[in-house]
Parts: sequence; structure tokens; C-alpha cells
Amino acid sequence: MSTSPARRVIAKDTLEAFSASLLEAGGFRTDYARQSADLLVWANLRGADSHGVLRIPRYIEMVELGIVKGDAKPKLSREFGAVAVIEGDRVPGATGMSMAADKAVELAEKFGIGICSIVRTSHAGAVGYFTERVARAGMVGIAMTASKPLMIYHGSKLEGVSTNPISIGAPSRNAARPIVLDMSTAAVALGKVMAAKDAGKSIPPDWGVDSNGVATTDPAKVKAVLPMAGPKGSGLSLMIEILVSVLGGNPLISAALTDNRDAGFNGLVIALGPSAFGLGDDFEGEVNRLVRAIKSLPPAVGTDEVLLPGERGFLLAEKRLQEGIPLALGTISRLAEEAGKRGIAVPPELG
Amino acid sequence: MSTSPARRVIAKDTLEAFSASLLEAGGFRTDYARQSADLLVWANLRGADSHGVLRIPRYIEMVELGIVKGDAKPKLSREFGAVAVIEGDRVPGATGMSMAADKAVELAEKFGIGICSIVRTSHAGAVGYFTERVARAGMVGIAMTASKPLMIYHGSKLEGVSTNPISIGAPSRNAARPIVLDMSTAAVALGKVMAAKDAGKSIPPDWGVDSNGVATTDPAKVKAVLPMAGPKGSGLSLMIEILVSVLGGNPLISAALTDNRDAGFNGLVIALGPSAFGLGDDFEGEVNRLVRAIKSLPPAVGTDEVLLPGERGFLLAEKRLQEGIPLALGTISRLAEEAGKRGIAVPPELG
Repeated sequence: MSTSPARRVIAKDTLEAFSASLLEAGGFRTDYARQSADLLVWANLRGADSHGVLRIPRYIEMVELGIVKGDAKPKLSREFGAVAVIEGDRVPGATGMSMAADKAVELAEKFGIGICSIVRTSHAGAVGYFTERVARAGMVGIAMTASKPLMIYHGSKLEGVSTNPISIGAPSRNAARPIVLDMSTAAVALGKVMAAKDAGKSIPPDWGVDSNGVATTDPAKVKAVLPMAGPKGSGLSLMIEILVSVLGGNPLISAALTDNRDAGFNGLVIALGPSAFGLGDDFEGEVNRLVRAIKSLPPAVGTDEVLLPGERGFLLAEKRLQEGIPLALGTISRLAEEAGKRGIAVPPELG
Repeated sequence: MSTSPARRVIAKDTLEAFSASLLEAGGFRTDYARQSADLLVWANLRGADSHGVLRIPRYIEMVELGIVKGDAKPKLSREFGAVAVIEGDRVPGATGMSMAADKAVELAEKFGIGICSIVRTSHAGAVGYFTERVARAGMVGIAMTASKPLMIYHGSKLEGVSTNPISIGAPSRNAARPIVLDMSTAAVALGKVMAAKDAGKSIPPDWGVDSNGVATTDPAKVKAVLPMAGPKGSGLSLMIEILVSVLGGNPLISAALTDNRDAGFNGLVIALGPSAFGLGDDFEGEVNRLVRAIKSLPPAVGTDEVLLPGERGFLLAEKRLQEGIPLALGTISRLAEEAGKRGIAVPPELG
């Protein structure tokens, strides 16, 4: 977790402006570029570098390949009561999921709860970003995204479900510090397997399987990751596919497994308004009481502090807002290459 | 999982009638007794014996202690848009959560999605029972329950959260076979730790901790269970407490940790209507396509068949409906003792 010397440090605003310029030069509409840059830098601030600006070259490539449309025009395709569905038109995920979050909040203001699905959006990155958006509106948010098979289905030797993440976020009295759980349904991020491989270390036997579908402790042999907690992880991922993709009208898993077709990327956001439950400011006060109760638990042996969901990320973000965001030299050189191709100036901090 | 010889086999209807008689004699209103018996036998049918009729003596004791009210009068205390809250008045959990499920379905018929919380109900047992109820109404159901601290909070050496379960259920074309995920947020059921202790076997290091809060492989030393997948399990449990108890207006965790007070048991059910999403019968057809795709995955080495969430339970239930439900002699003797005290005839199969 320490900042290795093979890094440069850059201020948040500078990185965000540079990222937005790159995405815009790569074909993203100005507002889409800004929203995507905001999400990517949000992830870097919180130490989730694998969901940060290192994705930019691939995002631009996805526009070139037509997987993402830089000038997409998402449309509300369905609205009934507290339910809405957006036809995403391959809009960048940061924009698509933010639209879904805002629509869910709008519906929840009227009905107490609101749900908005978006189908055919694109990779949405760190899904906690969207429940934090709902929490900033004073509501509890639930967000999920669904994609093609990427993870072993428990009991099978092949990938049968995605690593579909789920986030649940709630506002607290400290507006800058909502509680945000953001978890993948996989046992581990593929990045951790790659890091163990680079470090020449073995991995726990419940992280991944080899090409025969058998669990392995050798990171070099990992062909696919295993679900979190065995059948629970793949079961939860399957139910997320049903909630997000089947209900949304764009099934991804059966398209992939049955028709060998990539049907894209879907997501959904649910918002719940505390006032509908008869709670006003009490709600945030009670969340704070819960926060204090959990923070007062005695730490386990070898642990300094009991942390809330998302707290490690918020602490790091506060530090990085002050001290800047460290970027690996590999990431910088790829961004600089992209900038060179498109005539965008590289910020001097990264030179 | 095999039927040991120290068992008797009883027909489902006989066990249900006997259970309802016991509960009624123990102070449950007739309809509450029948609903609780239905839920308990549902669990036995599916092999979830720890959530089955062995609970009856404790359920009756809870009425005697006033923790459960056999003649409770739950009331709708709040309704706004697609949100409802029921004041449970300590109603038996099977009845309370069924009321919440029915109310959620009613709201979803009107608004596409509906959520109903119930506060101050009692132990609800196998939570999949309630999402199956929603699925039988042709909707997707999400159910969660919350109780007092029973599980280690990740990073602490003490119990800070409950083992709060979550279930997600969806209807399929085969009405008798919805897909029902039903998972606890704990790494393991305490019953499995006790079984390892009885069998003199060691347990994996991520199941439980000793009295110092340190992970142990000796089941005799387990003082508390660990969360599923470390921070994910306790984080998810905490967010369930927020969704169920804090939003419902009856926080349990802060009551226990801060005030040393047992504030009871809460639950919630969300229902989602496929027609609100623009889907009719297509939905169940698409769920079936997904079922077929998953069932067609090649089994892992050492596995006969790839199973869907809940499928093992449904297969066992179909068998036990034909062949009867095996009950352990220990369970039978406790039920017979309870029957003797209350002048209820024990079915001859159990004699």
C-alpha cells in the first residue's frame, strides 16, 4: 500500500482535467468525458487504482471499436410507477449509471423507493461511486452491474457468471463520509492474482482455478477466478444477473453461454428515501449512532482500528486530496503515449 | 446428509398438523400456529433441519417469556407511495414476514416495486420461504432479516453484527421450482461447528474465533463465528441492519452495543413486478433460458451436477414429499415431551 518510488504524484484536479481531455480527444462527448474522468479519479483517490485512469486507453479503444458510443443518446424507454428503464445506446458507464442513480432518486422522492435499470451501457467501474451519489441526495442507495461470464460458477469448471459487484451506501451526519459497501462477488480481484504472480508468491486455494477447472495455489496457472464464499458468490452473481439484466430486458449470461454473443453491460440503481419510512434527520443520526457503536468495538489482535465499509477509501481520499495522487510509471507512460497520439499536453508533474 | 438410523420418518401433512397443534397449545393463535408450522416443515422438507420443527420448544418458551406474543396484533404503521412499515407487536416471524411479503407484492402491483418493513417481529427462520412466496405471485422477491450481534465484525475481536441473512428469489416457468438464493452473511452456521465438535474434527481457520478473538481450527474453542468472506460478510450484514432496522425505525445493533438492550427482530421484503419492466411471460421464459444455460455448464472435477440456488432443497423436498421427512430421535423426544406437557397426541409414526 506504500507509495513506491516508481511513481509520480499529481493533484486531483490536474489529473481529472488531463483525463477528461484524453477521453474527449478519444471521442467522448465533453460532458461524458468529464463524468468518466470524475469517476476514474474518484477510484484513484480511494486507492482502487485498477478502476482508475489506467482504464483510459481501453475506454478510448472501446469507442474506436464501437463498443462504446462517445455521442450516445440514452433514452428513458420505460416508466411505470416507481420503476424506470433506460435504453443506454452504449453510453459510457459513468454517465449511464449516474443517469440511473438520478432517476432512482427522483422516483424515490415521489414513491419512497425508486428503481432505474440501464441496459446496454458500458463498463461502469467502481460501483460505490453511484451509491455515494444517492447518499449525497440523503437516500440509501443500492447499485449493481452485470456483464458477461468472467468467473467460475460454483460446481462447474467453467466461467458461468460475471464478477457482478453490488454496492449499498447510506448517508451519515458527516456528509463527506457516507457508509459505502462496494463488493465484487468474486473471491478476489484478478489484479491481486497478477500481483502475486509478479511477486513470485503462491495464492490461497480458494482464489482461482487452472485450465482444468481445478483450484490452484500457483498464480501463473490461474485461468479463472472463483466466486466469493463458494456457492454464495456465484449464486449472488446469478441473482444480480436476473435483477439487472433479465428484468431489464437484456440478458447477458444466456446470450453468452447459449448464443456465444456479447450482449454488453447493464446496471441498476435503487434509491430509498428515509422520509418515506417516517424518518427525517433521525435517520442520519441513527446511522451515526451505529457508526460510533461499530467504531467502539475492540480491534482484533494485530488490527489497529475497526473500519466501516468504505472507510479505508475515504481516509485515503482525504490524504490524497491534500498530498496528490500517486500514479505508477507504467500507467503514466501509457497515458502519455495516448496524449502524444492526440496532441494533448501531458501535465508537467507526470513528465 | 444421509438418513442415520437414529431417526423416524413422518409424512409432511402429519408433521405440519402436529407442529401446529403444539404451537397452538403453547399459546400461538390458530392461524399463527399454522403459518409457523408451515414454515418450519418447509425448512425440514428442504434439509434445513436447524430451521425446522426442532425450534418448536424454543418458540413456545419465547411466548412464555413474552418475547413473542401468540395473539399479537401487527398494524400497518406507515405507508407512503411504494413503501410500507408494519409495527409487528412481537408477532411470530412466519406470520410477520408473510404479511410483509404480501404487502410488498400488493405495492409492486401498483408501483412496479414495493417494499415492506416489519419491526418487532420475531425469529423468522428460513428467509427463502418468503421470497418463494413472492415468486409464487410471479414477482422477484428480496427478503432480509436483522437481529442482535451474533457474529464477529471483521477487524474486531467481538460480535458486532448479526448473521443477517438475505434471500433473492425469482419465478421460473416451472412454478414449483423458482430460483431461491438464501444465504447467511456468516462464514458458516453454528450448527456445523457443533457437528465438527461432536465428530471430533478440526474446522477451517475462517469459521470461528476463540475467546481471545483469534481464529481457531478447534471447534470446541469457538466462541463466535466469523463473517463470510471477511469484510464482505460483516459489511453486508451491517448494510442489512441499516436497510432493515435503521430505515424501519428500530435499530438493533446500536441498541445492543451502546445500551446493552435487546430491541428484538426486524425484517423486510421487496417485490419487483416483471410487467412494470415491460416484460410479461417473457420474463419467466428468459429465467428458464438462464437456468438451462447454467445447468449446461460442465461440472467441476468431483461434481455430478451444476446446481442452481435453492435447487438442492427443492430436489430434497420433492423426495421427502414422497418418502416422508426424517426426524432425529433427539428432536422427536423434545417434541414428545412438549406434547406430553400439553396433552397433545404424538403421531404414531414418531412413537
